[in-house]
Amino acid sequence: MELNFNKSDGLIPAIVQDAETKDVLMLAYMNRESWAATLKSGKATFWSRSRQKLWLKGESSGHVQMIKNIYVDCDDDTVLLQVEQLGGAACHTGHRSCFYRKLEGGEVVVVGEKVFDPKDVYK
Amino acid sequence: MELNFNKSDGLIPAIVQDAETKDVLMLAYMNRESWAATLKSGKATFWSRSRQKLWLKGESSGHVQMIKNIYVDCDDDTVLLQVEQLGGAACHTGHRSCFYRKLEGGEVVVVGEKVFDPKDVYK
Repeated sequence: MELNFNKSDGLIPAIVQDAETKDVLMLAYMNRESWAATLKSGKATFWSRSRQKLWLKGESSGHVQMIKNIYVDCDDDTVLLQVEQLGGAACHTGHRSCFYRKLEGGEVVVVGEKVFDPKDVYK
Repeated sequence: MELNFNKSDGLIPAIVQDAETKDVLMLAYMNRESWAATLKSGKATFWSRSRQKLWLKGESSGHVQMIKNIYVDCDDDTVLLQVEQLGGAACHTGHRSCFYRKLEGGEVVVVGEKVFDPKDVYK
């Protein structure tokens, strides 16, 4: 299985979805190295654009994403990971999903559940 | 609501999810113009990277995506669109979702439903 890493500086977007509830939890980026690490370890591993390094999701928080299913899109340039989210939350803000805010009548409203306080997790 | 279009050449990824089944249908990119057009029209409108033009999803096929809900992520640089997919399929291959292939034991297996024959739709 060969993905197309040529379109955006060697990176492809990876959508992370809760395998059970089907909630979309987050989106992050993968390069070849993180894709290989994900397949090998069974744990979602990304490329951190801000830190420019391999990023095992949950390495600080313990909130690892265990891979359940992997889908690839029609152009081989996006992947969909269905995961079991350990610790109950994907977002560094402590919300279950990074998409915890909804647009309602032009305003942004917080609708997502907060599972942890970042102060307790990132020390 | 101000999104951050500065990270990837003025583009942000937009995840499209079926509002009812919660299946992830596709991922495409938006620039400021397509984001504004989506908000104004209530129909998913992207920026086509291959054609370098505004792309009203379904403009050729009729398979327009009617916006039901919009979520923004913690970094303001990714959006999640929950839609009603007209015509039953999002993918230009005729499959319901662009993520119609699954990785199974190192092999790619077609698991997604095919709703139309592209030859009948793109003439």
